[in-house]
Amino acid sequence: MSNQDLALTDATERCSPLVREPLSAGRAHEIARTFKALGEPVRLRLLSLIASHDGGEACVCDISPSFDLSQPTISHHLKVLREAGLLDSERRGTWVYYRVIPAALHQLSSALADADPTAAVTA
Amino acid sequence: MSNQDLALTDATERCSPLVREPLSAGRAHEIARTFKALGEPVRLRLLSLIASHDGGEACVCDISPSFDLSQPTISHHLKVLREAGLLDSERRGTWVYYRVIPAALHQLSSALADADPTAAVTA
Repeated sequence: MSNQDLALTDATERCSPLVREPLSAGRAHEIARTFKALGEPVRLRLLSLIASHDGGEACVCDISPSFDLSQPTISHHLKVLREAGLLDSERRGTWVYYRVIPAALHQLSSALADADPTAAVTA
Repeated sequence: MSNQDLALTDATERCSPLVREPLSAGRAHEIARTFKALGEPVRLRLLSLIASHDGGEACVCDISPSFDLSQPTISHHLKVLREAGLLDSERRGTWVYYRVIPAALHQLSSALADADPTAAVTA
C-alpha cells in the first residue's frame, strides 16, 4: 500500500477540526508527526517547490538549483517528508521523482479549519 | 501589539497556499516556526482542549486534570504555543486564561489548502 493509498484511506476519519473537540492522545501523536515534518523551513520550501513545479512533480535535479544545500541533505529532507506521508516518489531511470500527496495536505488543512479569523479575543 | 493583532495584520499576506507557488525563504521560516510548535502531541492536545473548552478559553486549572504532566511542564508548552502566535493569554486573579487565536489557525489552514484530496498520483 502506497503513502497515497494510506492518506486517502485515513483522510475522512482524520479530517475533523481540532478546535471542535479535544484530540485523543493517539490522533494528536499522528498529526503532530506530520506537523513536525513541516516544522523546518527547508522542508516547507521543498514541499512548496514540488507542489508548484510543472506537472506537480520534481526530481532532485529540478530542486537542487534552488537550494544552497548538498544533494544528500536535500535527499534526507525529502525522505522525512516521504516518511511523514506528505510525498510520494517514483524512480524513473537515474532520478527519483517526488509528488505531493494532496489528501495529506487536505487533512491537515481541515484539522486546522473552522477557526473564524475575524473572531475577537473577548476575554 | 498583542499576538492577536499581529496574527490579524499578517493573515492576508500569509494566506496564499504553498502549493501554488514556491515559498520564499523568509515566509518558509515564519510558517515553519508555527508548524514546529504544533509538531508535538502534548501541544496539539493543549491547543485542541483550549479551543474546544467552554467559552473558547481555559486556564491551567482546567487543563491539568486531562494530562499526566506537572503544571510547570504544561505551562512550558503553553508558552511555546503563545510565542508561536497560536495562543493569547490574560491573567485574571490567580490564573492565566488561554485562548486560541483563530486567525493564526486560519492562515496555516489556508497555506495548506488548494490541494485536491482525490487527485491521483499519475506519475
